[in-house]
Amino acid sequence: MQVSIACNVGGGGGASDHQMKERRVAMNTSNAPTCQSKVRVESSNRHTLLGHAHMKEALGRHSNMKYRNLGKSGLRVSCLGLGTWVTFGSQISDEMAESVMTVAYDSGVNLFDTAEVYASGRRSSYVVTTKIYWGGQAETERGLSRKHIIEGLRGSLSRLQLDYVDIVFANRSDINAPMEEVVRAMTFVIDQGMAMYWGTSRWNAVEIMEAYSVARQFNLVPPVCEQAEYHYFQRDKVELHLPELYHKIGVGAMTWSPLACGLLTGKYNEGVPESSRAAMKGSVWLKERLSSDEGKKQLSKIKELHLLADRLKCTAAQLAIAWCLRSEGVSSVLLGVSNTEQLLENLGSIRVLTQLTPPLIAEMDALLGNRPRNGKKEARRS
Amino acid sequence: MQVSIACNVGGGGGASDHQMKERRVAMNTSNAPTCQSKVRVESSNRHTLLGHAHMKEALGRHSNMKYRNLGKSGLRVSCLGLGTWVTFGSQISDEMAESVMTVAYDSGVNLFDTAEVYASGRRSSYVVTTKIYWGGQAETERGLSRKHIIEGLRGSLSRLQLDYVDIVFANRSDINAPMEEVVRAMTFVIDQGMAMYWGTSRWNAVEIMEAYSVARQFNLVPPVCEQAEYHYFQRDKVELHLPELYHKIGVGAMTWSPLACGLLTGKYNEGVPESSRAAMKGSVWLKERLSSDEGKKQLSKIKELHLLADRLKCTAAQLAIAWCLRSEGVSSVLLGVSNTEQLLENLGSIRVLTQLTPPLIAEMDALLGNRPRNGKKEARRS
Amino acid sequence: MQVSIACNVGGGGGASDHQMKERRVAMNTSNAPTCQSKVRVESSNRHTLLGHAHMKEALGRHSNMKYRNLGKSGLRVSCLGLGTWVTFGSQISDEMAESVMTVAYDSGVNLFDTAEVYASGRRSSYVVTTKIYWGGQAETERGLSRKHIIEGLRGSLSRLQLDYVDIVFANRSDINAPMEEVVRAMTFVIDQGMAMYWGTSRWNAVEIMEAYSVARQFNLVPPVCEQAEYHYFQRDKVELHLPELYHKIGVGAMTWSPLACGLLTGKYNEGVPESSRAAMKGSVWLKERLSSDEGKKQLSKIKELHLLADRLKCTAAQLAIAWCLRSEGVSSVLLGVSNTEQLLENLGSIRVLTQLTPPLIAEMDALLGNRPRNGKKEARRS
Amino acid sequence: MQVSIACNVGGGGGASDHQMKERRVAMNTSNAPTCQSKVRVESSNRHTLLGHAHMKEALGRHSNMKYRNLGKSGLRVSCLGLGTWVTFGSQISDEMAESVMTVAYDSGVNLFDTAEVYASGRRSSYVVTTKIYWGGQAETERGLSRKHIIEGLRGSLSRLQLDYVDIVFANRSDINAPMEEVVRAMTFVIDQGMAMYWGTSRWNAVEIMEAYSVARQFNLVPPVCEQAEYHYFQRDKVELHLPELYHKIGVGAMTWSPLACGLLTGKYNEGVPESSRAAMKGSVWLKERLSSDEGKKQLSKIKELHLLADRLKCTAAQLAIAWCLRSEGVSSVLLGVSNTEQLLENLGSIRVLTQLTPPLIAEMDALLGNRPRNGKKEARRS
Repeated sequence: MQVSIACNVGGGGGASDHQMKERRVAMNTSNAPTCQSKVRVESSNRHTLLGHAHMKEALGRHSNMKYRNLGKSGLRVSCLGLGTWVTFGSQISDEMAESVMTVAYDSGVNLFDTAEVYASGRRSSYVVTTKIYWGGQAETERGLSRKHIIEGLRGSLSRLQLDYVDIVFANRSDINAPMEEVVRAMTFVIDQGMAMYWGTSRWNAVEIMEAYSVARQFNLVPPVCEQAEYHYFQRDKVELHLPELYHKIGVGAMTWSPLACGLLTGKYNEGVPESSRAAMKGSVWLKERLSSDEGKKQLSKIKELHLLADRLKCTAAQLAIAWCLRSEGVSSVLLGVSNTEQLLENLGSIRVLTQLTPPLIAEMDALLGNRPRNGKKEARRS
Repeated sequence: MQVSIACNVGGGGGASDHQMKERRVAMNTSNAPTCQSKVRVESSNRHTLLGHAHMKEALGRHSNMKYRNLGKSGLRVSCLGLGTWVTFGSQISDEMAESVMTVAYDSGVNLFDTAEVYASGRRSSYVVTTKIYWGGQAETERGLSRKHIIEGLRGSLSRLQLDYVDIVFANRSDINAPMEEVVRAMTFVIDQGMAMYWGTSRWNAVEIMEAYSVARQFNLVPPVCEQAEYHYFQRDKVELHLPELYHKIGVGAMTWSPLACGLLTGKYNEGVPESSRAAMKGSVWLKERLSSDEGKKQLSKIKELHLLADRLKCTAAQLAIAWCLRSEGVSSVLLGVSNTEQLLENLGSIRVLTQLTPPLIAEMDALLGNRPRNGKKEARRS
Repeated sequence: MQVSIACNVGGGGGASDHQMKERRVAMNTSNAPTCQSKVRVESSNRHTLLGHAHMKEALGRHSNMKYRNLGKSGLRVSCLGLGTWVTFGSQISDEMAESVMTVAYDSGVNLFDTAEVYASGRRSSYVVTTKIYWGGQAETERGLSRKHIIEGLRGSLSRLQLDYVDIVFANRSDINAPMEEVVRAMTFVIDQGMAMYWGTSRWNAVEIMEAYSVARQFNLVPPVCEQAEYHYFQRDKVELHLPELYHKIGVGAMTWSPLACGLLTGKYNEGVPESSRAAMKGSVWLKERLSSDEGKKQLSKIKELHLLADRLKCTAAQLAIAWCLRSEGVSSVLLGVSNTEQLLENLGSIRVLTQLTPPLIAEMDALLGNRPRNGKKEARRS
Repeated sequence: MQVSIACNVGGGGGASDHQMKERRVAMNTSNAPTCQSKVRVESSNRHTLLGHAHMKEALGRHSNMKYRNLGKSGLRVSCLGLGTWVTFGSQISDEMAESVMTVAYDSGVNLFDTAEVYASGRRSSYVVTTKIYWGGQAETERGLSRKHIIEGLRGSLSRLQLDYVDIVFANRSDINAPMEEVVRAMTFVIDQGMAMYWGTSRWNAVEIMEAYSVARQFNLVPPVCEQAEYHYFQRDKVELHLPELYHKIGVGAMTWSPLACGLLTGKYNEGVPESSRAAMKGSVWLKERLSSDEGKKQLSKIKELHLLADRLKCTAAQLAIAWCLRSEGVSSVLLGVSNTEQLLENLGSIRVLTQLTPPLIAEMDALLGNRPRNGKKEARRS
């Protein structure tokens, strides 16, 4: 049995909530090839950036970043993306948000989830996504209808001051909306130039397969990837179900919550501190989870993984992210950071990835004790 | 034999008539979440609304309203809609029209037929429809052609000052226009973003089935619902033919004239008053109908239904509307009211719906004596 | 053997020629229902129109006009259209052109070929066409390519100051252009809203059938009608080949040159007058034709038809046009007139149509001696 | 074994390089029919053109030019096109570029590759192409994705200040991008009106066939032509593989480098001069190639072809270009010239084409000793 600790804020919340979270931040790209007249970076921001000068020199543009095709599409994304929506809920300042995005961009990150950046660099050098939500009270009244998808995306584009996003995600599936309507609406926004690709978020494998099948039946555009939670304690979907979809229909995985909301960094090993997310209003559930039997077992495993990280001379966070990156079919892992220090630490996971040899992975699987098994395949082998 | 008492004004009239009836009224949504800079509500209107303050408090937003998917589409509509076209023919003032729409919106109504409202709330929170007419003298010259459908919708949008409607209806079918041309034109306006969905109005089951079949053949967009007359004395289409279409191809029913132009409220029980619709010029037909043998029988049944309503502690109108709502495949019943008192009374039918138990429905069927029977099915059973 | 006397000027000419012939003329619609602020009719024009006041009173709007569906499409066109391109080559003044169009419009004509009118009435009340030419020197260099079709139509719309035409015709077929490219380009301009329908002009039956077949294969839009020459001495295509297409694929016939450039009016019965078209530069061919053996036989038949017209108390032109209208599958006959007197005379042919009984048609066929026979059908019967 | 001497600059370079090479030059069309108010030709340019007056008189518009359909499409292109991208790398002045384009246009050239011209003549009288690059460092990060194709073309159009190009080419194929995505993106830009046709550049026959097959499967738009290198020492693709594609799916060949970067003109017969391209930085490869055994053999053959040209009273360049034009399926040969003298010399090859009799072609094949053979066909015959 897996315990899912999702920190995708707003998953159960209303539409008004997440709409507030889309934020447009000017990104200061230090290595942009030519100076453009439209640069909007103000002196104060530039000041902030000077402080990061040493980092950028150390990193250089694209120094270590790896790029992967998003599923079997032609779109190449950095294997680490910035989950800006989760990141910049309402906790950090615009100045910090800009610094984080600038460092991310200069480190070769080209995938920015659910938020837009103003870059002095070219629009074509990064990938922006947005999401059409469904699930809250307001959404239940509206349904995941053609009307809601189109108007939802128009609303996002208007708030982001963009003509188009690169990927639009349909969050959760609405059992009352016919799949044909959803796929037709997604094809419509792509045909209109409002989006380049579409993906799913929190859909199960059968729903994604149905979307693909409907797209084939009516010559519409199939989805290119699924956004899914993925970390040590939430493995089945990404390791068991999505690889099959990747091989059969080319749908890739863009995963989020690699650190299980900070749980895996050892943040809560000694209890919940006052300033942490678990202590915040609305996270009572997380706090209670941590004190359950299941939660205590997980904390114990986290401590062992901490020792393993020490052995590899990396941090617990870097090990956890590299472990996600090793998985077949994972196109990109979305990071959720709140400052540049965290970001730079997380980016270091790319270096750790090469250390994850098959014996080490086996050791980690033994330690976690939750490697998913495909019953059918096992049956065939015996 | 059913007697149809349709009050869909302009059904036999010319184009110029119904074009006059589209009206744009500012809707004052008292519970809009945030204050917007574009609010156009003038002081006089606000004054009008203060008068309704007690109503809104009593109702609250969405208090009792139920939402249903429109057919098997993903679009969710309130089970009671505002048939503004019928409502606001030319009989009530702009101020009253605005009050009616405001109360409707605040009561959770999100479906406004053939008229547009200006709301300080979000455009995405209500559904607007319009109709392409065919049948009058001018239409006969034009045909239900691609040209007429596209230009007709452009004309509507221009008069309504809208970029798009949610549903565009093709009124009546033109036997001279090929179905492929109609469905291609409807798909064109949807592909152009001028409408979200399309529906039919006063089409028979075979025509709707043909439209669906042509859409499937050429990968075009099928219709989502049929607008049909439905009340105690006009049952066959909605109870016999449309459920089959609903199950097979997902087309829902949006019904109008639940009170048979006021006939069912007992308005004409004691003869036709001078100020009533039946007394107006052009309603000679209705007046004659009421004095026919068939008409007299219906008036007698209406009196019995009145007694039944008294028993249920509701009005005759509430009973009649609730009776429509009970029918499978009915997505929404369009109300035709001329003031806020009537509207509030009609909205009360949602409460009555829960009282319509199977025995009560059986009692009403016995009283009406016109329950439609599917000959084929009966034959199969015997 | 048929003798074809086509007067479709520019058929063998260059592109620059026919582009000059598109002309935008303000049409004064006396019976327009409501006064609009955009009326551009100047006083001088109004003066011209006052002179026609008696005509309009006599005619009334739509008095005698008959409407037919264009092929099996849903578009209804008046059975007599105004072939303005031929009409207003360069021979009549703008004032006369306007008067002709105004009288035509007021007489119920709603089809204007290859030219646009500015009407104070609604745009949706008439049908405008344009043509993409191919065949001249410049066209041979360009081919009937996607590029030429799209740019050609854009050019027409720009010159006509229109957003769209109702029907765009592809003039002649280019054996080097693949049919798929032509049909895709026509579908593109329709999908873009630059045209409502497309038709062919001077294509043979096999070419039209191929266009239809390609449209069906790739789910593109098939053509709705063929423009063809049709008069006493040019019958095979319209009477033999097009009816089969009409029945099988719904393509209708819009015919031109009903008077064979004036030949049938008896204009040249006594030789070629100096001011006539046949005497003009470039019409040497027509002059020589008239003096050939074949031409002399035709002139003799024309004299007999004149006597027949006298018997029916109509003019030779009215008889010739009514004879065209009697033919199955002819949706509209394009008139080529140069003044309002001619137009009013030609419009009178609708009245004559009812006099064309089967015995009279048989008499005319005997007189003409050129009734087309379908060899295959005859063979089947024997 | 063929030796390929490609001079397609930037093939292995980055995106920033080739973007610099798109240049917008005002073209002075001396024979434009009417004077337009938008003419931007400045006095200095006009001066330049006066110098060419004698040439233009000698040539006249369209004097000798031949036109061919591009593959089996309906687009007619001059058999000689101007490969302006190669031509105007960064070596010649804007004034010379303008002169070259003006002379080309006045000589009947209507195909301008990868660069736009401002012409006082009509936009519809010439064909403009552009290319979406893939292969350099920046492209590898991006992939030949939908995003890159659409944004790349938008970027080109913006730099060229054009609404659309006639043909957009996908340069090289990206094995990681699914063919469906490429063909859907190309169809998107055509449906949006940003391009009229699309073609491939440097794709192999199987890749082109796959693109065609995917287009047929999903009813998308297939490519119309392949841009390929073609000259005496690079024959297999154009003579062996493309004719089969031409016959089966109508894809034509637009060839470049007819003179193998000047090699065939005898420029390097006596070694590499300092001012030549081979001496330039970055052409070390070419210099080394020329001194290899294979290179020496080729130089010897070039000398013999020089003697053959003398016999035909034409230049070596004219013979080489005419030899390309003789090949079946070659729609147009792109010239790479750096001044008007070279251009006029090259244009003379059309005259030479008529002298290339079968015996002469056989003589040249014997001399070159590299006539491609289709193994399969040979096998079938024996």
